[in-house]
Amino acid sequence: MCRWIVYLGDTVPLEQYVTAPSHSLVVQSVRALESTASTNGDGFGLGWYGAHPEPGLYHEVRPAWSDENLRYLCRHIHSHLYFAHVRASTGTPITRPNCHPFACGTWLFMHNGVIGNWSRMRRMTEALIPDSLYGSRVGTTDSEAVFLAILGAGGDTDPVGATARVLATLTDMASAGGISSPTGAISMPFATPPTIMRTRSISGNPAAMSWSSPSRSIPSAPSGRPFHPGAPCWRSPGSRSALSRSFAKAVSRRSDLPLACCSWRRVLIRAS
Amino acid sequence: MCRWIVYLGDTVPLEQYVTAPSHSLVVQSVRALESTASTNGDGFGLGWYGAHPEPGLYHEVRPAWSDENLRYLCRHIHSHLYFAHVRASTGTPITRPNCHPFACGTWLFMHNGVIGNWSRMRRMTEALIPDSLYGSRVGTTDSEAVFLAILGAGGDTDPVGATARVLATLTDMASAGGISSPTGAISMPFATPPTIMRTRSISGNPAAMSWSSPSRSIPSAPSGRPFHPGAPCWRSPGSRSALSRSFAKAVSRRSDLPLACCSWRRVLIRAS
Amino acid sequence: MCRWIVYLGDTVPLEQYVTAPSHSLVVQSVRALESTASTNGDGFGLGWYGAHPEPGLYHEVRPAWSDENLRYLCRHIHSHLYFAHVRASTGTPITRPNCHPFACGTWLFMHNGVIGNWSRMRRMTEALIPDSLYGSRVGTTDSEAVFLAILGAGGDTDPVGATARVLATLTDMASAGGISSPTGAISMPFATPPTIMRTRSISGNPAAMSWSSPSRSIPSAPSGRPFHPGAPCWRSPGSRSALSRSFAKAVSRRSDLPLACCSWRRVLIRAS
Amino acid sequence: MCRWIVYLGDTVPLEQYVTAPSHSLVVQSVRALESTASTNGDGFGLGWYGAHPEPGLYHEVRPAWSDENLRYLCRHIHSHLYFAHVRASTGTPITRPNCHPFACGTWLFMHNGVIGNWSRMRRMTEALIPDSLYGSRVGTTDSEAVFLAILGAGGDTDPVGATARVLATLTDMASAGGISSPTGAISMPFATPPTIMRTRSISGNPAAMSWSSPSRSIPSAPSGRPFHPGAPCWRSPGSRSALSRSFAKAVSRRSDLPLACCSWRRVLIRAS
Repeated sequence: MCRWIVYLGDTVPLEQYVTAPSHSLVVQSVRALESTASTNGDGFGLGWYGAHPEPGLYHEVRPAWSDENLRYLCRHIHSHLYFAHVRASTGTPITRPNCHPFACGTWLFMHNGVIGNWSRMRRMTEALIPDSLYGSRVGTTDSEAVFLAILGAGGDTDPVGATARVLATLTDMASAGGISSPTGAISMPFATPPTIMRTRSISGNPAAMSWSSPSRSIPSAPSGRPFHPGAPCWRSPGSRSALSRSFAKAVSRRSDLPLACCSWRRVLIRAS
Repeated sequence: MCRWIVYLGDTVPLEQYVTAPSHSLVVQSVRALESTASTNGDGFGLGWYGAHPEPGLYHEVRPAWSDENLRYLCRHIHSHLYFAHVRASTGTPITRPNCHPFACGTWLFMHNGVIGNWSRMRRMTEALIPDSLYGSRVGTTDSEAVFLAILGAGGDTDPVGATARVLATLTDMASAGGISSPTGAISMPFATPPTIMRTRSISGNPAAMSWSSPSRSIPSAPSGRPFHPGAPCWRSPGSRSALSRSFAKAVSRRSDLPLACCSWRRVLIRAS
Repeated sequence: MCRWIVYLGDTVPLEQYVTAPSHSLVVQSVRALESTASTNGDGFGLGWYGAHPEPGLYHEVRPAWSDENLRYLCRHIHSHLYFAHVRASTGTPITRPNCHPFACGTWLFMHNGVIGNWSRMRRMTEALIPDSLYGSRVGTTDSEAVFLAILGAGGDTDPVGATARVLATLTDMASAGGISSPTGAISMPFATPPTIMRTRSISGNPAAMSWSSPSRSIPSAPSGRPFHPGAPCWRSPGSRSALSRSFAKAVSRRSDLPLACCSWRRVLIRAS
Repeated sequence: MCRWIVYLGDTVPLEQYVTAPSHSLVVQSVRALESTASTNGDGFGLGWYGAHPEPGLYHEVRPAWSDENLRYLCRHIHSHLYFAHVRASTGTPITRPNCHPFACGTWLFMHNGVIGNWSRMRRMTEALIPDSLYGSRVGTTDSEAVFLAILGAGGDTDPVGATARVLATLTDMASAGGISSPTGAISMPFATPPTIMRTRSISGNPAAMSWSSPSRSIPSAPSGRPFHPGAPCWRSPGSRSALSRSFAKAVSRRSDLPLACCSWRRVLIRAS
């Protein structure tokens, strides 16, 4: 399983959560104790919003823990909304274009989970990408294909609906082909300022998706309540996501957290 | 334009043509004077046949000229049939899976040239790859797609016919879509021992393909005449290919050449 | 020969000179037409000053022209003082720690040129680095050794004097050992805000060094005159440096240049 | 702690121990369960003897587990004597020249362990390298410095004595400087055919070194007894080394093992 952080809040250097804390994402990438993968050493990536309308990207095939560039970049790049991802490949090659997050126009996307039976689902999924976006498929992952399919299904104007439609289509196609559980447990944050969305679905069930459209007057939470450690990061009626336990320990040492961040393990979706 | 060597002959260390000579492929990769690209620094690759039935592969995204591993490998790996390729990307990313040569089963393939209008031709070309081979598409290049399409069209039993069919199909599809000159000038060696083939086509014209099925009792040329420097490497009725001029200079210093090798520039197809 | 840019001026995205222009440093790295090296593909680096007191660094062993990260970073990182460098190795390995610029504390340094007879000069040069700074020698280049020797000779408080002393010492040691022209033509910018210095020396002659301590109220030149294209970038009594010819062409298309930038070729030191 | 294998025996493809078994060195590099390091993902290397008098080398900064090249190379390269090493850095950068094994002339060397207080011991150790070998110092590790110091102390003709002298000198210098336990537990195989040596010392005590000079008529053990799984690999009077427990499990499934191989954990030196 991959691990990731989404940060939304005051403009801060990325190091505050990615590289500096004792339970930073990078530290977690080495000692992936709670993970089914023993390590998250199959490349990593950053995506962030700054002065330019399109997000910045940094992808590297080396493990995050030994990349000196990453420490410098996380110290010097400041952002109010960024993604960070450490990869544990489920089979596609370790190349930069296969590292998360993915960008298309002003959108950023990353993914934890796997499209099951990808060898059988691959062509069906790629077929959902419209011609106008197929040139943006620079890698070979399931994640990038789903991202472009969602954008192609209207994700730029209706991200929740488009995601639901794509996941439903994948589920239907899989059923028709006798392929089981194609979308398994999927966790997919994606964003274009000032909108951010995180979906979690199980077997394509779109009810579990959460959605937020925070004003830039963060630290208000989308629902109007301030973010604080351990509290939901994004919310929609009937769902909430909590911080990962290990990350929460690092986070709980800080009392000033207008943040929305999340690493994968122990991200719970509970009825409130 | 990429550059490549195919070697077929006595078992020798790869360094004999790839790294050691003053006009070696690696030296050519730095000073690409006769090329339209100023350098061939967009990754490189080796493919070779040895004791194992499937060929070995070595791909690297760094330029060939600064890769210390390459010098050691070319000194220690011996082969009677190998491919070497230095890449000048025509747009697809610099990743290992996008480096030539490509392998599938016992087949090796590499490519010089470009499928014109690749952004419009890509889906059509990928659609020619049968499901059974689509899992072997690990990169995103035009070259790999054409290779798998040829294998899918029966390339393992009828490589000349399959290549002709695929190129014709691409030409037809392009015409139907109003896309001009899709296959331009293509030079594609591919091999499975004891068979080796080199095609050169212009705008999909398959008449220019050459084909050989040498016995292992090389240095006899496929036609029964011995290989010698400057002579045709592969031949079929009505066509012959000469060595590149710059490579021929290096080659002509050696009088013991039971080889079939070729770098791209100045590869001439002449009626004999 | 390596190529480099130093920028000092208004805070701008790095892309303005590194990646975007038609004669950008990255474009120059591919087609090194005026260079003795045919290409500058042996790694590259960025160093920049921002909110953090210590500079940021980005080093990569791949050529600058094919690094997708570089385009994103240069678009998103803004700085009023940065270094960019494309390397043509003179023999030391292509590793990240051997890529310029080098940083130590708040200092940045890069180098064009070569310490001649480095195999014989290496131990002498390394011996000039004090124990307290030897831990900062993370690579194996002549450039880094000279940088640390200068800092060890008091470079942080008297950079001009320290540079002169180190170059003189190297020249003397070389003479004593019967080694000719150890320092050849050296071009070394180094900086700690608000101080920036560029030295050019021939055979260790320190008279050719230029020095500036610009106020932050750039675009005034250190001497009080505004920077403009083709004008001296840094100056000290008796010397001035002009832009490289090829870079000047790109620069001269822009009329808004509060910059101090320089690429190596055709950097002239003339008595004013 | 790093992990390594030395193989000495019949000529076999490297994959037999490096990549193919379920407890291969590469598998161990991901799940370093018995190690103090959680992973051995800081680069890796191969060194092997073949037709050429000097050994071949392959170094890579990516983790061994995700390097596709490694699988192909281990399948196609055959050797009767090879080294393989997966690195867990103790502080020096992740660069190819810092990856083990190291080669100098016909010698191969690798190292597990660390020179304690390296920041204080570094200059002393480097000072032991004679000028004639200092050009071979292409990286910055403690391991390479010790290797070159041993060769400089006569290691090519008297490897046991030279190793003892260098370790003793380091211990003395450390004592004089008030530095504790400089050489800690060191495990260093090095070889030039037909000689192979493995040392293990604790705090510089050279009594624990083992040494062998096998004839090429392996599988005889140096002492005249055949190698077999679980038996000592190298031996000298009063010491023997057993296979690592985890590796022995893989090995014990094979009954045809004229090998001398070893991975680090649980390598025991016991009085026989």
